[in-house]
Amino acid sequence: MARHHQHVTIIGVGLLGGSIGLALKALHGRDVHVAGVGRSLDSLNAAIKAGAIDSAHLDAAEAAPSTDLVILATPVCTFEHHLRRLAPVLKKSAWVTDVGSTKLAVVKTANRLIGQDRFIGSHPMAGSDVRGVANASADLFAAATCIITPSSKTPPTLRRRASGLWKSLGMKTIEMSPARHDQVVARISHLPHLLSAALMLLPKDDDLAAAAGGFKDMTRISGGDVEMWRDILLTNKQNILAALDAYEKRLRETRRIIAAADVSAIERNLIKAQLRRRLFVNGNLNR
Amino acid sequence: MARHHQHVTIIGVGLLGGSIGLALKALHGRDVHVAGVGRSLDSLNAAIKAGAIDSAHLDAAEAAPSTDLVILATPVCTFEHHLRRLAPVLKKSAWVTDVGSTKLAVVKTANRLIGQDRFIGSHPMAGSDVRGVANASADLFAAATCIITPSSKTPPTLRRRASGLWKSLGMKTIEMSPARHDQVVARISHLPHLLSAALMLLPKDDDLAAAAGGFKDMTRISGGDVEMWRDILLTNKQNILAALDAYEKRLRETRRIIAAADVSAIERNLIKAQLRRRLFVNGNLNR
Repeated sequence: MARHHQHVTIIGVGLLGGSIGLALKALHGRDVHVAGVGRSLDSLNAAIKAGAIDSAHLDAAEAAPSTDLVILATPVCTFEHHLRRLAPVLKKSAWVTDVGSTKLAVVKTANRLIGQDRFIGSHPMAGSDVRGVANASADLFAAATCIITPSSKTPPTLRRRASGLWKSLGMKTIEMSPARHDQVVARISHLPHLLSAALMLLPKDDDLAAAAGGFKDMTRISGGDVEMWRDILLTNKQNILAALDAYEKRLRETRRIIAAADVSAIERNLIKAQLRRRLFVNGNLNR
Repeated sequence: MARHHQHVTIIGVGLLGGSIGLALKALHGRDVHVAGVGRSLDSLNAAIKAGAIDSAHLDAAEAAPSTDLVILATPVCTFEHHLRRLAPVLKKSAWVTDVGSTKLAVVKTANRLIGQDRFIGSHPMAGSDVRGVANASADLFAAATCIITPSSKTPPTLRRRASGLWKSLGMKTIEMSPARHDQVVARISHLPHLLSAALMLLPKDDDLAAAAGGFKDMTRISGGDVEMWRDILLTNKQNILAALDAYEKRLRETRRIIAAADVSAIERNLIKAQLRRRLFVNGNLNR
């Protein structure tokens, strides 16, 4: 993070916001003031105790006037409310980014309320099924990828600032348009969440006595934050429906070859998945 | 394991067979002789070097005459072949079990070839997406659950022997009929594998650059052994098709509430999954 961001406001002091605060304080110590905005005194107090924020505020407008950088880290459907509070009081030189999991709707709203010259969307692909600042950590972002989603008129300086911020937290960064971002994450993140939740609800209670590592891994993300996921499903509906349709088509084909006991098709499918998984884990699929 | 099992034959010296060998040798040292049966000299040599087996054989019939206990740890469709080799040469006092992931077909075949008084099915719910004796470990089974599947006429002594064997390896044991076992594991193990493989094949290569922990967890088991999974899908077809149908019904309902942007139904679904996941992980669902 460049030297001129000496006052950072983080809106939402949960797992992600809290982890950003911890990372910034670990990097810059007293050279950065981190203001936290939350809706409950309990979470704000916990964030202060954890050392994730230096000051606590219930309203974004209160922290904003002195701030150089604002990071939105609440469920995406709350962004409009916070951006409306920020817009009239932000310094001319301040910039704004976010950690939201959907981008097209977010960027559109932020461009309208804050402007393309001061807002740039970010999506750090790091998180967890555990919630709250109590689980936050300064290295949550280390080695993960952050997708930055500039608009057509985003100034290069703003793109460099965003990239610099996430790289300072240990991330790799890639750029995508907001529309492309929403398509991609529907397939690699939003669909998997729905699959995980549906699987968690399928077996009977008795069945789960013997459930092992595979089932545990497959259902881990279904434990994730409800408000965050509700907002994701509402703001990326079309891409998620398309991903669901493509997935259901695959499942029907899987069903067909099992019903037909088509040994060679079954083997081919298992081998393709096994091989692709290996290439993916070893970073050999365009990574 | 009781003192009278001094000669154990493990058929298949991969991840599971190798891990059983390592665990038995760690527990009993020279008081147990572990004979390994495999189809390649390479894997048998690796198992000897790893200390998982004491002697190596290409044919089950070669090791069997002096054996007290035989454990089948190859893909389930190969069991019939090995059981036919074993049947004529097994000692009267010897008993046989297996680690196969499907039970109805296995138990039927084994009861016919070996007899209910000497065969009892086992399914240790432990494993991994990594393969081979190189990844075997003496504590692979620790704290996991083994499902034991006695038949209607299985003698109590045989049930105690099987239970004693798996408990000595650190496992909890539960009993189920072979038919019930196959229904349950279709939902908690076989369906998840199909979901994982289908997900691994869905995104485009480019999409995977940003895939994070959730996607990695959800696709881990798709890297599993192809022959083992092929045989599972072939021998538990009806239960797997039923589980797939129930799952697809859930997905269609998920699709419906997202398409309708039914906020309260979406929230209810996410909360139900989150809560059930928490109860499951904390062991509060009949565990």
